[in-house]
Amino acid sequence: MERKELINGGKVKSVYNTTDEDKVIIEFRDDMTAGDGERKEVMNKKGCLNAVISSKIFQYLESKGIKTQFIELLENNVMLAQKLDMIPIEVIVRNIATGSLVRKYPIEDGTKLDPPIVQMDYKDDEFHDPMLNYSIIKALGIATQDEIDILVELAGKVNDALREFFDQAGIILVDFKIEFGRDEEGNIILGDEISPDSCRLWDKETLEMMDKELFRKGKDDEVMDAYLEVYNRVLSDDDKSKYGL
Amino acid sequence: MERKELINGGKVKSVYNTTDEDKVIIEFRDDMTAGDGERKEVMNKKGCLNAVISSKIFQYLESKGIKTQFIELLENNVMLAQKLDMIPIEVIVRNIATGSLVRKYPIEDGTKLDPPIVQMDYKDDEFHDPMLNYSIIKALGIATQDEIDILVELAGKVNDALREFFDQAGIILVDFKIEFGRDEEGNIILGDEISPDSCRLWDKETLEMMDKELFRKGKDDEVMDAYLEVYNRVLSDDDKSKYGL
Repeated sequence: MERKELINGGKVKSVYNTTDEDKVIIEFRDDMTAGDGERKEVMNKKGCLNAVISSKIFQYLESKGIKTQFIELLENNVMLAQKLDMIPIEVIVRNIATGSLVRKYPIEDGTKLDPPIVQMDYKDDEFHDPMLNYSIIKALGIATQDEIDILVELAGKVNDALREFFDQAGIILVDFKIEFGRDEEGNIILGDEISPDSCRLWDKETLEMMDKELFRKGKDDEVMDAYLEVYNRVLSDDDKSKYGL
Repeated sequence: MERKELINGGKVKSVYNTTDEDKVIIEFRDDMTAGDGERKEVMNKKGCLNAVISSKIFQYLESKGIKTQFIELLENNVMLAQKLDMIPIEVIVRNIATGSLVRKYPIEDGTKLDPPIVQMDYKDDEFHDPMLNYSIIKALGIATQDEIDILVELAGKVNDALREFFDQAGIILVDFKIEFGRDEEGNIILGDEISPDSCRLWDKETLEMMDKELFRKGKDDEVMDAYLEVYNRVLSDDDKSKYGL
């Protein structure tokens, strides 16, 4: 598969067209950003760790009947994926209240949320990713009510599957962000990435953070060790000998 | 009906218990505030104008089959009302995009919204009235899904009725905020006020503002003339000779 022109240079990933018009190449770069991209650092191996972890998770979700954009990993940090018309919504699922939720609303940090909170933010750095509601999503022409219903249903299914996935690795899935796109027939497919960049993950025993929150809090020297620990826990020995990270 | 202890000293209204435990007295004061109460001025006659306009509107809505808290006007600025357990949600209905909506999202000022946008903000000055979604409303225990459905349905009915009401007065209803409460049986009843404090109103011919937005923009000396103009247009001559404002 040959890489053609760049079609989306994101903050941490670059998406390229390929010689097959139905497929894209997603390169996971070593960039790490926070605060709408205001702070940016390069973290060695981050691209590979996130691409490999995402691939593992997407394959797991496929095994649970959830369709994803993932096709195969071409290199440790390069994913071949189905080309989607991405929906500019960050679908956020929260199992434990923390972060912006407890800053915005009177709810105590650490409160268990059952059922989980599902939140949709408009993916737009210029407007600082404002929270949406269904009425605004429709008025802005971002998605139809039928599509919103599918997003909510899929978010719940992904959460159920991911909680089990991480639990088996001794990790609590606190919250996460996922993105979806439409295929040629208009089906809603899970895309983007699922990694320590897009999830809040806590060690089940120590409750220590194992995700990008460390970077947001300025603990830059601990971030990659945490990502590597997630990698070590969720991948099999066979996988690890293949990737050698 | 005798006024007893103050049970809610709001930014512009004071609510008192009465000798009848099912009823409250709502005093509309002459205070005007903006920016979560950061700016505050006293505007002569404002309390009377808002109480009289609200009473007129509540009676109109009752005639359209929408239950409200309103019982009667005891004085020009004093309303006797059914006691409700108020739900801390500001239900906002937008027929034309302006204000915070166009600041928060990429939508052009003045865009007609059909269907209207319905938005729910958490009524809490400390948290700056953050926007809610259904999932967060339920997680915070503010309302059930059944109640949310009723709020949305009632908001639509109120909007339909109010648009017609203001149209007959040569006024465009741009957007408005309403609040609801529960009666003893748990029925959802429209409460609070509907006035130039809580609506964006534009003259149908000139598109000039006729509401609190003038105060937000610092045009303090034009505000009460605008409120008086709304009063003059929506009340009958009989009404006006009664109130004499």
